[in-house]
Amino acid sequence: MADVKRVYTFGNKEAEGNGKMRELLGGKGANLAEMNLIGIPVPPGFTITTEVCAEYYAHGKETIIKMLRPEVEKAMQKIEALTGMNFGDAKKPLLVSVRSGARASMPGMMDTILNLGMNDHAVEAVAKRTGNPRFAWDSYRRFVQMYGDVVLGMKPVSKEDHDPFEVIIEAQKAKRNVVNDTDLTTEDLKELVVKFKEAIKKQTGEDFPTNPWDQLWGAICAVFGSWMNERAILYRKLNNIPSEWGTAVSVMAMVFGNMGNNSATGVAFSRDAATGENIFNGEYLINAQGEDVVAGIRTPQQITIEGSKRWAKAQNISEEDRKNKYPSLEEVMPNVYAELNEIQHHLEQYFTDMQDIEFTIQDGKLWMLQCRNGKRTGAAMVKIAMDMLREGLIDEKTAVLRCEPAKLDELLHPVFDKEAIKNAQVITKGLPASPGAATGPVVFFAEEAEKVFTETGQRAILVRIETSPEDLKGMLDAAGILTARGGMTSHAAVVARGMGKCCVSGAGELDIDYKARTITVGDITVKEGDWISLNGSTGEVYLGQVATKAADLSGDFGHLMELAGKYSVLKVRANADTPKDANQAFEFGAEGIGLCRTEHMFFEGDRIKVIREMILSDDEDGRRVALSKLLPIQRGDFEGLFKVMNGYPVVVRLLDPPLHEFAPHDEKGQMEMAKEMNVPLKQIVAKIEALSEFNPMLGHRGCRLGNTYPEITEMQTRAIIEAAMNVKASGKPVHVEIMVPLVGNHKELRYQKEIIDRTANQVFIERNDKIDYMVGTMIEVPRAAVTANQIAEVAEFFSFGTNDLTQMTLGFSRDDISKFLPIYLEKGILKHDPFQILDQNGVGQLIREAVFKGRSTRPKLKCGICGEHGGEPSSVEFCHDAGLNYVSCSPFRVPIARLAAAHAALTQK
Amino acid sequence: MADVKRVYTFGNKEAEGNGKMRELLGGKGANLAEMNLIGIPVPPGFTITTEVCAEYYAHGKETIIKMLRPEVEKAMQKIEALTGMNFGDAKKPLLVSVRSGARASMPGMMDTILNLGMNDHAVEAVAKRTGNPRFAWDSYRRFVQMYGDVVLGMKPVSKEDHDPFEVIIEAQKAKRNVVNDTDLTTEDLKELVVKFKEAIKKQTGEDFPTNPWDQLWGAICAVFGSWMNERAILYRKLNNIPSEWGTAVSVMAMVFGNMGNNSATGVAFSRDAATGENIFNGEYLINAQGEDVVAGIRTPQQITIEGSKRWAKAQNISEEDRKNKYPSLEEVMPNVYAELNEIQHHLEQYFTDMQDIEFTIQDGKLWMLQCRNGKRTGAAMVKIAMDMLREGLIDEKTAVLRCEPAKLDELLHPVFDKEAIKNAQVITKGLPASPGAATGPVVFFAEEAEKVFTETGQRAILVRIETSPEDLKGMLDAAGILTARGGMTSHAAVVARGMGKCCVSGAGELDIDYKARTITVGDITVKEGDWISLNGSTGEVYLGQVATKAADLSGDFGHLMELAGKYSVLKVRANADTPKDANQAFEFGAEGIGLCRTEHMFFEGDRIKVIREMILSDDEDGRRVALSKLLPIQRGDFEGLFKVMNGYPVVVRLLDPPLHEFAPHDEKGQMEMAKEMNVPLKQIVAKIEALSEFNPMLGHRGCRLGNTYPEITEMQTRAIIEAAMNVKASGKPVHVEIMVPLVGNHKELRYQKEIIDRTANQVFIERNDKIDYMVGTMIEVPRAAVTANQIAEVAEFFSFGTNDLTQMTLGFSRDDISKFLPIYLEKGILKHDPFQILDQNGVGQLIREAVFKGRSTRPKLKCGICGEHGGEPSSVEFCHDAGLNYVSCSPFRVPIARLAAAHAALTQK
Repeated sequence: MADVKRVYTFGNKEAEGNGKMRELLGGKGANLAEMNLIGIPVPPGFTITTEVCAEYYAHGKETIIKMLRPEVEKAMQKIEALTGMNFGDAKKPLLVSVRSGARASMPGMMDTILNLGMNDHAVEAVAKRTGNPRFAWDSYRRFVQMYGDVVLGMKPVSKEDHDPFEVIIEAQKAKRNVVNDTDLTTEDLKELVVKFKEAIKKQTGEDFPTNPWDQLWGAICAVFGSWMNERAILYRKLNNIPSEWGTAVSVMAMVFGNMGNNSATGVAFSRDAATGENIFNGEYLINAQGEDVVAGIRTPQQITIEGSKRWAKAQNISEEDRKNKYPSLEEVMPNVYAELNEIQHHLEQYFTDMQDIEFTIQDGKLWMLQCRNGKRTGAAMVKIAMDMLREGLIDEKTAVLRCEPAKLDELLHPVFDKEAIKNAQVITKGLPASPGAATGPVVFFAEEAEKVFTETGQRAILVRIETSPEDLKGMLDAAGILTARGGMTSHAAVVARGMGKCCVSGAGELDIDYKARTITVGDITVKEGDWISLNGSTGEVYLGQVATKAADLSGDFGHLMELAGKYSVLKVRANADTPKDANQAFEFGAEGIGLCRTEHMFFEGDRIKVIREMILSDDEDGRRVALSKLLPIQRGDFEGLFKVMNGYPVVVRLLDPPLHEFAPHDEKGQMEMAKEMNVPLKQIVAKIEALSEFNPMLGHRGCRLGNTYPEITEMQTRAIIEAAMNVKASGKPVHVEIMVPLVGNHKELRYQKEIIDRTANQVFIERNDKIDYMVGTMIEVPRAAVTANQIAEVAEFFSFGTNDLTQMTLGFSRDDISKFLPIYLEKGILKHDPFQILDQNGVGQLIREAVFKGRSTRPKLKCGICGEHGGEPSSVEFCHDAGLNYVSCSPFRVPIARLAAAHAALTQK
Repeated sequence: MADVKRVYTFGNKEAEGNGKMRELLGGKGANLAEMNLIGIPVPPGFTITTEVCAEYYAHGKETIIKMLRPEVEKAMQKIEALTGMNFGDAKKPLLVSVRSGARASMPGMMDTILNLGMNDHAVEAVAKRTGNPRFAWDSYRRFVQMYGDVVLGMKPVSKEDHDPFEVIIEAQKAKRNVVNDTDLTTEDLKELVVKFKEAIKKQTGEDFPTNPWDQLWGAICAVFGSWMNERAILYRKLNNIPSEWGTAVSVMAMVFGNMGNNSATGVAFSRDAATGENIFNGEYLINAQGEDVVAGIRTPQQITIEGSKRWAKAQNISEEDRKNKYPSLEEVMPNVYAELNEIQHHLEQYFTDMQDIEFTIQDGKLWMLQCRNGKRTGAAMVKIAMDMLREGLIDEKTAVLRCEPAKLDELLHPVFDKEAIKNAQVITKGLPASPGAATGPVVFFAEEAEKVFTETGQRAILVRIETSPEDLKGMLDAAGILTARGGMTSHAAVVARGMGKCCVSGAGELDIDYKARTITVGDITVKEGDWISLNGSTGEVYLGQVATKAADLSGDFGHLMELAGKYSVLKVRANADTPKDANQAFEFGAEGIGLCRTEHMFFEGDRIKVIREMILSDDEDGRRVALSKLLPIQRGDFEGLFKVMNGYPVVVRLLDPPLHEFAPHDEKGQMEMAKEMNVPLKQIVAKIEALSEFNPMLGHRGCRLGNTYPEITEMQTRAIIEAAMNVKASGKPVHVEIMVPLVGNHKELRYQKEIIDRTANQVFIERNDKIDYMVGTMIEVPRAAVTANQIAEVAEFFSFGTNDLTQMTLGFSRDDISKFLPIYLEKGILKHDPFQILDQNGVGQLIREAVFKGRSTRPKLKCGICGEHGGEPSSVEFCHDAGLNYVSCSPFRVPIARLAAAHAALTQK
């Protein structure tokens, strides 16, 4: 162990490490080293490697201190030499900061200690050297407080108070009868230091360490320890950061922005993080330390004149007031500003990405404390990448990889107006089932949503305990959908995503009373017609009307999509059931329809009645009568789809849901049906009862319908083939793929294929013409994956239905999963909702097996995926890796999938 | 192709083939050859091999005739030489029979043609040679008729008439004004032959072939053709006979049992096929051909004196009448009888199995036409095997292999009295869900079944649309259970099989009216209290009372079980939830409990109320109160089980079903609950509604319960460990295996194991003692199989829950499968109900994968199966082959599983 280098120094434009050593030095440490190497002014310091973090957890505090001591002492001497100060010295005491820094940025998650090295001697020396005793004592007070919290683990004295030291400060202020911290005198600060130390002694039983070296080792170990604090663990879980990575620790000479009016501290971005505009921007505070900017006690000022003017305008501040009270850094310290501006430009050019920087000006001298690639909104992400590409800063591949697929979602849906949302009252939170923002009056029934829209043009918010296929029309007319039950892949969620409509599902706190037409949450009651607003991207539900604005897809977006297409291997298709959806998908760049769910067509207008007539028939003859009425309707639907797709492949799935889904479940509908069909109500009720199932998910559906009622498959095949021939006759190309759902056994598919081929041939003979078509199957039953070699003897393509495959492989009913999923996520039994992010270890293994076995029989077998996962970036990446030919997802996810597909191709080893 | 030998001759104690050549010569051909070789008198002939059957289907009629001609002509010459007759000769015409004969016996499934070689010349020659013109013309008439039917494919002239020739015969009889065929004169028969030929010409447009060679080739090809007739295809499907096997064709010189009173024909068994008694028995007819025995026009007589006397007694026929009208062969032809008796004995000794033989006596000379191992009942099967073992005829292994596991079932349950059942009226047929016979008055509610039994001691037939766990006590008190819904693995079926109680499930024709307390089927109405009878082995439901008798497990049965144990590798355990079940299982030879479903214990007595208190509690505290009441009850249950099993392993599964299964679903129960718990009814109803699920099968159950309510796992673990320690303290050995259900992810198991280990340790500390226990898991979610390597890191044993694994792998809800299963079986999409016979290709692949992956992590991993398949012979064989350590099944299936396990070990390659 002794031979390993554990400490890397930097300072004065030299560094032992560099920017490529993120894994070893953490992001912060690597960039501090790199900034030195490229001549940026950085206070000298050193970084202890991330490997030591693992050693800390393996061997404990004492051991690592022993191991580190020689290297750290030597590194400290380097700082002393460069600063001319000495650590622990009584006259020229060197103070340092100790900061964490993992490979990936984890802002605010781990601990930082400033002003380390302070003690009763040092404070006097600092006071003397700076001629500013208040500054010295304030720094000392801050250090004791931070050290007490972070290293010594001081706990709140009561539930109400978060910080035990704040209690003491408040008492002091009360005693002095002042309001602000800044009103406390140097004497007050001295008193606070004493009281802080007493409190520490009282709670921990230990004296506050006066020896700077003891302080340093304590702080280093505390930073390592903070890697495993709850916040950090949670953050890593949410962001998929492995706990093995560990954090580095950077120790750096303190520079002070609070040494007077020639000092300042600030943060800045090299471009606008919200819009992506190429404008240097940021905030600073004169005579302050970094935490003051964050604390919000004083109003930070803008760095550039332009930014300052914009800000003042938004705040309704006159130019005079602005200049006097809130001048920009550019105005206050033009030379320092010029240097800062040059540095930000240099850093951006050097790192070829938008930079988020921290700086401190100590007595007129600029120091950079940190730089990193800046976080940004989806819109900024796209604009910056495309701008930098145009500027020649990055190449096409890099530009594509710079854009995170999931963040595109932000660009595709309406959003709340930023200002309006600030004052809105959140009444509950559900699942962010379908992104976007929606606002409107509450209705409780689908027909009401239709009625309100038809009569007034106003789109309502449809609030249901859960939705069912019968609600489809109402959902289409609504502005958004809110449900109390159901998960991310409940009916409401799936349909809403398909429509690109905002939806919050599973908001379990809502007490919905259909009779009274009210929602109750706690003591808030919302009545029919009252306005609420939904944020489908966060799951938040707001009381009242919140202004929204439509998404703006700028030219950069189109450019990015073009590049994504250029670098993808995997094709992207869309799940679309109507010409409208297909058109939307086409506009988003879908290269075909991967899933047309024919049953969705059955809910439009009066069609549902014909379907009901079919399912309530007692015999084949009765069913055939009803089916013959459906034939021209279906044919028309398919013609529309084929026309829009203009020769791109269209996968039409045969009827899939259990028939009871189409039955009228309320008495009113049943009576209507009885009347329509001229049979007693009792007979209708009995039939519906006979259709009911214990586990409809595993019931009489999919190809089991087509194999028990072959006449349904016949009708659908005829509609598909006739439609395709009509479109072909009109001079447009057509590419038809007929898909048989829920196959688990090759014989099921053989039976269906036989019916399809026979019916198609009949049409060919009738019309004395032919078209090409393919017959394939969904792979959504685990058995189909396991026996894919047999199924591929019949199937000309596979499409993985990962929704159902997940349900069956995991044994999770997606409609019931909300009962235990939250607990499973909380306990870490599951990392994600497997209906959102493909379970690669379980379901993924079956997919790989099926692709392998299928292609062992039919080497050119075309494989795709049409589950909800087809639009989720990590799942798309998996699909690329598993050798699929395409993914298919809801139209609004097509751009995300396309970008993810490009990423997969570009990052493949 | 020319070099292959396609024809094997036999005759006069010589044969080119032998008894071992079943594959090539079919069972019949091989045995005909073998009988020659051991000196049994058999008419000379030859057999065309089964390989030619495949050639027939590959190349067609013309080609195979060409190929066969030289060999067949040579073989025919051999027959001619041995008989002194000539095929097609005008004076001494040789007549032959042409018969099918596959590798496995397919009685009556394929075609046979007798008297071939007859034509207008031959008939005269036969008449002259035998001095019996009527015999000659009758033979001719029969030949034209058979040949017309079989070879020329004559079809019925109308729907009412099955045979076009019978119409002509009836017309002739009407014309002659006679009733019986035998009343027709020689002239009539001549006329019939003419008319038959005219009918053939009219329907087929062809002349009846007069050339014997044309006749022969036609017949041979017709036999090959009959391999693919509908009956034969169906029979093969039912009996798992591959269609590739093909049939052989045997051609043999005719011998005539209808040449006068010194001729006869008959069939016999070397032992009693019903009881297994070592008594030669059979029937014969004087002056008759084989078909007459079958046709039932004349009453066949018994072969032995003893058999004849028994028969007469049963028929109420006096000894005098018997002797005069129905004398035995032993009395009529004592010498021939003696020879026959000697031959049957010889054959049985030679083939070392009970023989089913066909013979013809022509003019006082005995000829054997066929011998094969006889079909027999389950009881006969066991007795014959054990008798032959004692006689030294076969060894132990052979005795075990002679007994078909599935047939043991017949011995284990009550059966209907044979005579009583003959007159019973079948009112409907359901699924044979649990074997045995039951009779009793109809009740519609479980409480009624309890009440009737408690008050009168009479066991009723419980008739339900479906049963639920609440009906358990009533089911226990009933004689049998009949349900209108649900498949072979519905609640009723599974529970009934577990109890060894007769059950017919899914009798969909029944219209059950709970209010009126009636069953209606067509125009039959059965009221409460009316008697019905159920045959759980066939699914038949009878009107009224049908007498039953208990199963008699003789000493032979015990002996067989002993041998099965001796030769098995796979252990057999039982699924048992109560000491009573466990005891039954123990008596049947179970070597442990493979599955104790703790939830079944919850339905007894007042326990259900405590459970309901738990599930209706709003918080953990409330649940803990209820659980603390359950603890002593559960502990008591487990003590009982452990005591009975006396050190054999006992697998206790933690709570599995979704909690709503325990909730009261009727308003009465809910009101009771509200009262008991002192909360408003509304609250109870709301809670139950909140618990309800769309797909309970894939819902909040199994370890998902234990992971969301850890207190349940804690209570159950405590009950198990405390019970085990109590039993251990009483001086009895205990072997505990705790099983976590529905694991799909290793983390789920880790969480549960952590709770189990922690709780067990607490008990160990409290008692200052320890016991060994194992923690394992069900593999019943496909994902568990796929990730078995990870799961085996935690699990100390696997138990395949093949019921649920089948549900999820195939996507079949066993409660709903009856909607399409019958159609799937009919269409051959499925060969079997996968809940009865393990789907080896799908589910089986996952099992093999899980065993392989599990043992790759934990080489000594103990693997078992506890689904319903554990008692199904072919599935048991699969389990042996897949390397499992044990199977576990309901107590009444333990003997079957033990025998199947022995078979698997003895037949393994």
